[in-house]
Amino acid sequence: MKSYLDCIPCFIRQSLDSVRRVSNDENIHQEVLRSILSKTSNMDLSESPPSMAQFIHRLIREKTGVADPYREIKQYFNREIMAMFDDLKSRINQSSDPLETAVRLAIAGNIIDLGARNQVNQHIIQDAIDHALNNPLLWDKEEFVAEVEQAETILYLADNAGEIVFDWLLIEQLPVQKITVVVRGYPTLNDVTLADAQEIGLDKIVQVIDNGSDAPGTILHDCSIEFVERFNQASLIISKGQGNYETLSDVDKDIFFMLKAKCPVIADDIGCQVGDMVFQRSSSHLYSQQIFTK
Amino acid sequence: MKSYLDCIPCFIRQSLDSVRRVSNDENIHQEVLRSILSKTSNMDLSESPPSMAQFIHRLIREKTGVADPYREIKQYFNREIMAMFDDLKSRINQSSDPLETAVRLAIAGNIIDLGARNQVNQHIIQDAIDHALNNPLLWDKEEFVAEVEQAETILYLADNAGEIVFDWLLIEQLPVQKITVVVRGYPTLNDVTLADAQEIGLDKIVQVIDNGSDAPGTILHDCSIEFVERFNQASLIISKGQGNYETLSDVDKDIFFMLKAKCPVIADDIGCQVGDMVFQRSSSHLYSQQIFTK
Repeated sequence: MKSYLDCIPCFIRQSLDSVRRVSNDENIHQEVLRSILSKTSNMDLSESPPSMAQFIHRLIREKTGVADPYREIKQYFNREIMAMFDDLKSRINQSSDPLETAVRLAIAGNIIDLGARNQVNQHIIQDAIDHALNNPLLWDKEEFVAEVEQAETILYLADNAGEIVFDWLLIEQLPVQKITVVVRGYPTLNDVTLADAQEIGLDKIVQVIDNGSDAPGTILHDCSIEFVERFNQASLIISKGQGNYETLSDVDKDIFFMLKAKCPVIADDIGCQVGDMVFQRSSSHLYSQQIFTK
Repeated sequence: MKSYLDCIPCFIRQSLDSVRRVSNDENIHQEVLRSILSKTSNMDLSESPPSMAQFIHRLIREKTGVADPYREIKQYFNREIMAMFDDLKSRINQSSDPLETAVRLAIAGNIIDLGARNQVNQHIIQDAIDHALNNPLLWDKEEFVAEVEQAETILYLADNAGEIVFDWLLIEQLPVQKITVVVRGYPTLNDVTLADAQEIGLDKIVQVIDNGSDAPGTILHDCSIEFVERFNQASLIISKGQGNYETLSDVDKDIFFMLKAKCPVIADDIGCQVGDMVFQRSSSHLYSQQIFTK
């Protein structure tokens, strides 16, 4: 997905929020903001939004000297959602359709995205869960189940810390031995890294690899060769969140996107409303597969 | 008042909203947005927010070739509020304190500010009226009445089209022969100009002059010499709205500011909450008067 003019005010807001989260130095805030303003004034709109977000968060790490600015907040969300694990698991197992309930909850968990909104708290997460359990989910369950059954290998592209706990609950409803969870290669925003997967113990139940990139999405030409090979070889991709959608929606690969639409730009691109749950198969599965090479 | 870093995301949003209001040409939108991004990357934060807004709206007029982009919307608000004139006047005259009711309504009218928010409609205006009539107004009525009585000449610095009708109702509660209403010198945003005052007929009941500037505020060094002389000679200034506050809050002159706080930056500067009604006398009336010269 390309970037839209409407992404730009959002980049500017996100830059200011993020740098303030990391540093109390007004001079650094100003330096970062001026750099982002200058960069966006020349930005190539054909690039996806996570490409600019990658630049922004690299710059913030560089200017502040903090390697993982969102470390504490990621730990907070990991802990908060792990504390809900047993309750969420009961809800899934006691529901009439555990797989669908797990899919709904995994999409609800995508609310924990500090790129799309300044603030996420327990109240907002609870609202997202209630919304997910009580609103229409447009998905072709039979198609998804058939593809999962046929697949030899499935890559599950995770998105954010905290959200990964919801992903864990969904993965438990799938053939876990076929699945590899993919996290970001380096800290960026509140996106999930190996440290988060290890912190919650997800790496004990499923293989977890990183993609080698510090973009808050999956920019294939920025990922490691090892990851790209795994991506190309995978029978099926499950992609969580806006950043992965924005970077992979035009890639010729069979992908099931799951996300909560949190901004008008992505909602327009998908053809839904802000707040909607999205479960969408890439249209490119209809055509011959083209392998991406680095 | 200086500009804050938080003003910048707002400038960017306002630029995009404004240029889209005037033109459907995506290339012009992009050109304007890129210019504003570049300009703000180097902006002097010691200048007031209306100084940047002046640049933005000049650029939009220049790039689109539309001299008064908000003409229609200004006419719409003038008509809408004129249609409420008799009803509002009855409310004032039937209230236990007509002057205070008129002040409250004048502040409510300040909601019609398309710089502070993208959209204003009848519902939002009604809410602002209800809020103004049912919430605390911190003002020293006796002090204000005494100053108005003592004053030989009063300049009433108006802010926006539509809002000017509320100002008219307040002016009727004051000694109208002492008052001169001041409007912007040229179209900028939805700020009030001579055309608006004439359109509603305000110029038939009170003297109306313009300040010679196209800033959405009162930047004295950008105003006409004639206006600046009137400003310096006036015994008292009544200043409506955020733009006039932002440009005059540091000026050494006895000014009563009336506005509705619509953004967190100005609310912080004043020490109030977003949404609050503000009636505040400038602190500089305590000190000796310094005359501004061009």
